[in-house]
Amino acid sequence: MSGKLYALSTGPGAADLITVRAARILGSLDVVYAPAGRKGGDSLALSIVREYLGEQTEVRCRHFPMSADGAEKEAAWDGVAAELAAEVGAGKRVGFITLGDAMLFSTWVFLLRRIGTPPWLEIVPGVTSFAAIAARAQTPLAMEQQSLAVVSCTAPEAEIAQALRQHDSLVLMKVYGRLARIKTLLREAGLLDRALLMADATLPTEQCWPRLSEIEDDRPLPYFSTILVNKQWGYEK
Amino acid sequence: MSGKLYALSTGPGAADLITVRAARILGSLDVVYAPAGRKGGDSLALSIVREYLGEQTEVRCRHFPMSADGAEKEAAWDGVAAELAAEVGAGKRVGFITLGDAMLFSTWVFLLRRIGTPPWLEIVPGVTSFAAIAARAQTPLAMEQQSLAVVSCTAPEAEIAQALRQHDSLVLMKVYGRLARIKTLLREAGLLDRALLMADATLPTEQCWPRLSEIEDDRPLPYFSTILVNKQWGYEK
Repeated sequence: MSGKLYALSTGPGAADLITVRAARILGSLDVVYAPAGRKGGDSLALSIVREYLGEQTEVRCRHFPMSADGAEKEAAWDGVAAELAAEVGAGKRVGFITLGDAMLFSTWVFLLRRIGTPPWLEIVPGVTSFAAIAARAQTPLAMEQQSLAVVSCTAPEAEIAQALRQHDSLVLMKVYGRLARIKTLLREAGLLDRALLMADATLPTEQCWPRLSEIEDDRPLPYFSTILVNKQWGYEK
Repeated sequence: MSGKLYALSTGPGAADLITVRAARILGSLDVVYAPAGRKGGDSLALSIVREYLGEQTEVRCRHFPMSADGAEKEAAWDGVAAELAAEVGAGKRVGFITLGDAMLFSTWVFLLRRIGTPPWLEIVPGVTSFAAIAARAQTPLAMEQQSLAVVSCTAPEAEIAQALRQHDSLVLMKVYGRLARIKTLLREAGLLDRALLMADATLPTEQCWPRLSEIEDDRPLPYFSTILVNKQWGYEK
């Protein structure tokens, strides 16, 4: 009996935007690990996949602290990575679910770094939040010779400003708590009316502002808020 | 009776990497339009979705010329866009399938520009080729404050070189026919051993070279060949 670990991307939020592969694997798991934003809190990833879980599947929520305390975070990752390896060692089919795509801005990568690339690991890719946003807003990401940059708003301002100058399209992730700063950068780049903001894409709480100029700087945003800039779309028709 | 048009992303190649939503919609379609690389040729997108089509679904392959002749391409896009709108006008449930994600380097965007954003259009996002490559190669795209650039190898060399300098991770798409040129750029940037090449990711013909330095410049590559560069991964452990 040999165990297996699946890193399963849940996609952006709607349950049916998971892949057929991930849905099938979820139904066959002995145990699934779900990341929870707060200690004892809900797991959005778990709510996405719940309908696909098998009756036999045990659910274990694990909290990953967002704190600046490096040691606390390292300890959490070390602990979960060890748990996953131990379950596989016991011959179980184990899943770790992760929002969006597992390899892009995901906690999963910290576990991967600890687990390495053993033969019992399979990573199942998923729909990224920005692909979902582009589809919902009916605004392309890139075409032909264009280039797309995917940038975290936690990056240094100079880097964000440079990316805004150099790429045709941009996805600005992790906007939460940084809207005023990002709006200033977009205004300086002359892109405020080329930028749309979408929150909770594909979830019932989805909100979209087609132009960033229409949002007040101090407006409270949902945690999953992303900006999409396409410099040409709409003007090129 | 009101018609509907779905732009359906098929994902990177494996049939089970399509979304549950796209799979369900495919089963309900009256007609599906599939892009074919050559006139009368096969459609990879069609081979991915065939198992999900309903018994009632009619299949229509349409050829989109790759030629440099702008007028020929425009005529093809105009023609298919008009066909799709006419089918919807006749009350049908119509699908247009597209490899990878519909909004990224996809022929679909040329149709979208013509069709606009009528209420009868829904775009279903999909797994991009590069998310699949990252999963298969077990190499992350980006984490924390890193940034990712997605660049077409058809872009000007100076732009590619600039992106190679400025981003932590890069996806270089459309490598086919341009390997020697791209290897030179990567060598100049000191990234030849930080770059992996994957062809036909998730298909039975998948091939991976973990280091680009191991591929001869004149080696014939499959059409769907993509390079992934992650400057830090592997060195940071």
